[in-house]
Amino acid sequence: MNNKTEKTDLLKTVHGPQDVKRIEAKHLEGFCQEIREALIRSVSKTGGHLSSNLGVVELTVALLRAFDFPQDKIVWDVGHQCYVYKMLTGRLDRMDTIRKNGGISGFPSPKESRYDSFVVGHSSTAVSAANGLAKAKKLTAEDGYTVAVVGDGALTGGLAYEGLSNAGRSNDRLIVILNDNQMSISDNVGFAARHLSSLRARPRYIRLKNAVGSVFRHIPLIGQPIYRLLSAGKNSMKRALYKDVSFFEDMGFYYMGPFDGHNPQQLTRALKTAKTMNRPVVVHVETVKGKGYAFAESDPGTYHGVSRFDTENPVTPTTVPNFSSVFGDCLDRLAQEDSRIVGITAAMKSGTGMQRFADRLPSQCFDTGIAESHAVTFASALAAGGMLPVFAVYATFLQRTYDQLINDTAIMDNHIVLAIDRAGIVPEDGETHQGIFDIPLLLTVPHTTIFAPATYRELELHLKQAIYDYPGIVAVRYPKGGEPAILSDYQPDYQPYLLQEQAGADTLIITYGRLYGNALLAVQQLTQIGRPVSLLKLNRIFPVEPEWLRIAQRYKRVLFFEECAARGGVGELVAAKLLQDGYTGRYTVHAIDSILPPCTVDEGMKMTGLDADSIFEAVIESEA
Amino acid sequence: MNNKTEKTDLLKTVHGPQDVKRIEAKHLEGFCQEIREALIRSVSKTGGHLSSNLGVVELTVALLRAFDFPQDKIVWDVGHQCYVYKMLTGRLDRMDTIRKNGGISGFPSPKESRYDSFVVGHSSTAVSAANGLAKAKKLTAEDGYTVAVVGDGALTGGLAYEGLSNAGRSNDRLIVILNDNQMSISDNVGFAARHLSSLRARPRYIRLKNAVGSVFRHIPLIGQPIYRLLSAGKNSMKRALYKDVSFFEDMGFYYMGPFDGHNPQQLTRALKTAKTMNRPVVVHVETVKGKGYAFAESDPGTYHGVSRFDTENPVTPTTVPNFSSVFGDCLDRLAQEDSRIVGITAAMKSGTGMQRFADRLPSQCFDTGIAESHAVTFASALAAGGMLPVFAVYATFLQRTYDQLINDTAIMDNHIVLAIDRAGIVPEDGETHQGIFDIPLLLTVPHTTIFAPATYRELELHLKQAIYDYPGIVAVRYPKGGEPAILSDYQPDYQPYLLQEQAGADTLIITYGRLYGNALLAVQQLTQIGRPVSLLKLNRIFPVEPEWLRIAQRYKRVLFFEECAARGGVGELVAAKLLQDGYTGRYTVHAIDSILPPCTVDEGMKMTGLDADSIFEAVIESEA
Repeated sequence: MNNKTEKTDLLKTVHGPQDVKRIEAKHLEGFCQEIREALIRSVSKTGGHLSSNLGVVELTVALLRAFDFPQDKIVWDVGHQCYVYKMLTGRLDRMDTIRKNGGISGFPSPKESRYDSFVVGHSSTAVSAANGLAKAKKLTAEDGYTVAVVGDGALTGGLAYEGLSNAGRSNDRLIVILNDNQMSISDNVGFAARHLSSLRARPRYIRLKNAVGSVFRHIPLIGQPIYRLLSAGKNSMKRALYKDVSFFEDMGFYYMGPFDGHNPQQLTRALKTAKTMNRPVVVHVETVKGKGYAFAESDPGTYHGVSRFDTENPVTPTTVPNFSSVFGDCLDRLAQEDSRIVGITAAMKSGTGMQRFADRLPSQCFDTGIAESHAVTFASALAAGGMLPVFAVYATFLQRTYDQLINDTAIMDNHIVLAIDRAGIVPEDGETHQGIFDIPLLLTVPHTTIFAPATYRELELHLKQAIYDYPGIVAVRYPKGGEPAILSDYQPDYQPYLLQEQAGADTLIITYGRLYGNALLAVQQLTQIGRPVSLLKLNRIFPVEPEWLRIAQRYKRVLFFEECAARGGVGELVAAKLLQDGYTGRYTVHAIDSILPPCTVDEGMKMTGLDADSIFEAVIESEA
Repeated sequence: MNNKTEKTDLLKTVHGPQDVKRIEAKHLEGFCQEIREALIRSVSKTGGHLSSNLGVVELTVALLRAFDFPQDKIVWDVGHQCYVYKMLTGRLDRMDTIRKNGGISGFPSPKESRYDSFVVGHSSTAVSAANGLAKAKKLTAEDGYTVAVVGDGALTGGLAYEGLSNAGRSNDRLIVILNDNQMSISDNVGFAARHLSSLRARPRYIRLKNAVGSVFRHIPLIGQPIYRLLSAGKNSMKRALYKDVSFFEDMGFYYMGPFDGHNPQQLTRALKTAKTMNRPVVVHVETVKGKGYAFAESDPGTYHGVSRFDTENPVTPTTVPNFSSVFGDCLDRLAQEDSRIVGITAAMKSGTGMQRFADRLPSQCFDTGIAESHAVTFASALAAGGMLPVFAVYATFLQRTYDQLINDTAIMDNHIVLAIDRAGIVPEDGETHQGIFDIPLLLTVPHTTIFAPATYRELELHLKQAIYDYPGIVAVRYPKGGEPAILSDYQPDYQPYLLQEQAGADTLIITYGRLYGNALLAVQQLTQIGRPVSLLKLNRIFPVEPEWLRIAQRYKRVLFFEECAARGGVGELVAAKLLQDGYTGRYTVHAIDSILPPCTVDEGMKMTGLDADSIFEAVIESEA
């Protein structure tokens, strides 16, 4: 950190935006340093998103000084860069509870605070949301501005384009802050990266003019006319001098920038100028991810999302295997031997474990940017062209591909593999990232096969089967994290299910995926108290095997446990089939019937009745 | 039609692309006129898409002359402009079967011909698909080019942006034809319209240069160097002179155009030039919708999709009410009295019946362009701002909103109304437009309520209830076309269901929507032969009412008929609930278990066992 900055002790006096406004300009730099230190301290203890929040310290301070939240509305795109905003809008003393069960969310949450306007978590939604909020203000004649803060990475998503195209057509008081931290640059040399880099390369005096203009603006009486004069000349001048503003201007926005994202005073002035436009404005701000914390600044990727860490030493990437790394390594091995295999990721090369594969086989790896819809249509066309595409995607983001799965893939029966990562209960991120709708949505897509491995070896086996042995859309879904310890000796095989019958049992548990570990534990405990229970582990969970139904018919009671949404899951489907098959025993589905808030996986399992103890209890209860 | 054009008699000699290539340049104009006449004659008898096909006659001829299909691949965006292509690739003699059961599709269909590369039907997918096809060619070292033909309207969809951004990054032989018929202009003054119009306004000599350049190119020996010289100068010159090419160029494409879309020779030359670039190219082509048929040219909207018509007289818009018009008029009435009500459409103002509403209450009506995802997030934010948004959308396009319904709406429990038009069996358009996944997808979205009106009056009633009486996402789904004649006297009420019990019946039929008409007919027939059957009509079809289950428990047999996909429908859900409730009778679901090809509604009902006769038979069979 910058040692020349004057020390301040202001953060503890800030309980809301009014207190941020009250800080004297000369203390702003010190105040930002205080925030930075508090943020690093806090995230080092709780884990969470660090780099992106370090990047928006000054921007957040400037936003709070220039706007009047919550009368004005703000939507943070993706939302994980809202920590500083939370700290300065009355949630400083709850930062130690962030991403924890009962604590505050790591994403904006209107339930949590009136300063949060809209639930965010998935990328590229902010402009569409801000468009709606601003339009509602206009239609109800309610005062105020609506702000969307959008990263350059989010511009790779089609929804951002739809949002800009529509919001720019409005004449509402809508201000889009383009938080340009060049994250879309790394591999993703697509449109956004190219266009923004040309904007950044503009002649410097034009960039200054914006700032100068806004200085004039604040001089009483003569300021406004001078400013208008400058503004009027600016447009034609700009058009004559550089061509690159056309995207946002063609969208209908007034474009300002780029501004230094780490100069809070200049930023505040720029934002105040933007407010005077009375029309949609894009304010282009250049920020540095990880700013002010050397470890994060030099390696923003590692500090993007971190667990608890030691502030004095750099975080080193974990080398412990998990489902993602096992998938990535397996894909790499398979693709080495078969050039038809290609891997696709939507800006999650590292998260999905595909980094090594990408490094070793760059021509077989495609990062589409945050464009899941495109990724599926692209994959389907690759399949039509004779390739074997594997799209690795988080379960929650698969929600963006429903139409592409049906219309662009299933109707043609094209063969694509979905490697669905972070399926089931996802720790810490809460409601917006739970992976519980992947199965309900896939079950309604024609010609689909789904595998749910419980262990690493089973994941490898199923991935091979998915690529080579099945037609159509074949999904392999696995959770975030590691395999259950109890299953370390489990030997997977090619059968679509595994039946473990116990003599004298008239209760059958059906389950799949990592829940098999919990069910095994429960069965062991039940056996110990003299209650034999049979266990049916599904390996290929869809389509429904007629044999499962025949097995179930042999039992008086069937309990189906699954780590996905109850509504539309496999358990419900099996119930429907059993009824039509004339089954007359007792049948219950135990699955996830609400969207979980932030919690650990263990807490989530307990809350939803899917941990070993709950399974044990459910069996006892069913036999009562 | 142009009477000065020399008459030719070539069409009957064309059995494939090689025959189109063989036509002498001097006969091209006459040949195009022949095509046009045949097209008008054909569509006047079969119904179908006319304006867009009249607009691409010369473009299609030029494509077939410049490329080698099917070695080269082509993807027509949306796909309804593929008629001329079908006529010239061996399907001329089957044009009288288009959009009919057993006939050829009105959209591209790889099953039908090796000249069709990819199933298309929904907008904005072509560039993503072409990107995949081109990449597969590259990776498998297969020769040839991949062409995507994209209308300007399709550029309003985010998927097109994702596709361009990714395809432009490739170095593949990919040619995007921008078929600019200014359809995105009408109301939709968004980015695409604005940008394309600035491209069209470019200095004319620059536009000519492309043509001149390509002429030089084809002079042996000296042509290439002269052409390169011109090309080299062009870039810097362009940048100096006009700024507007940056979008496609920033996407990574080489941009050429705009060209006159009705000059087949110039177009062929331009396409051949594009082929020499060995990199992604956008060829901007200006066409006129309805070209060459005065009635269609002056009113392309009416001739966009037509039923059978008389070629000598203009088609007049129908004034017979249908579900769409009843919805639109009802929305209009309600919105007149409540300024919080806003209507949203994704480029389907006319199709969804909202035109009159839009004309009368323009400030309460929003056309987002072909941007369904945005429309939902926008609607949800409007709701957060205190409005009552109603998004009217075809069932098949609702597939594009799954993530926005869950993450941007349901998690916040924002109240939006979905008016789902063309739900169930959709006549003529076939696989890509069936409205059968709306219910399966909505049933998995938390906090959702669904109404399924059977008649116009019931639609009006449910729309009011949806807007005012229920929280969260509330859908009202209705079919394309009119209400069943048998239900003209039906009096809807506010109850969530209607039970029509018959003394002595031990069979219960459950159904909803227009199938109620078929079920009533079947029940009447069954009564006549002394087989009493009770009938439960669901009005609010989701969530499941506990009372339905209690009613069902009283019957030995329950038959559930529904006009949606069998997998994931209400019938299956009721089965699952009944099993868990201990029901031990017979239960069968009769729904749509495949994606129907082109057919009429009556044919579709028969094929899926949902017509009155099939219901009659199913009851007889169940009682056997």
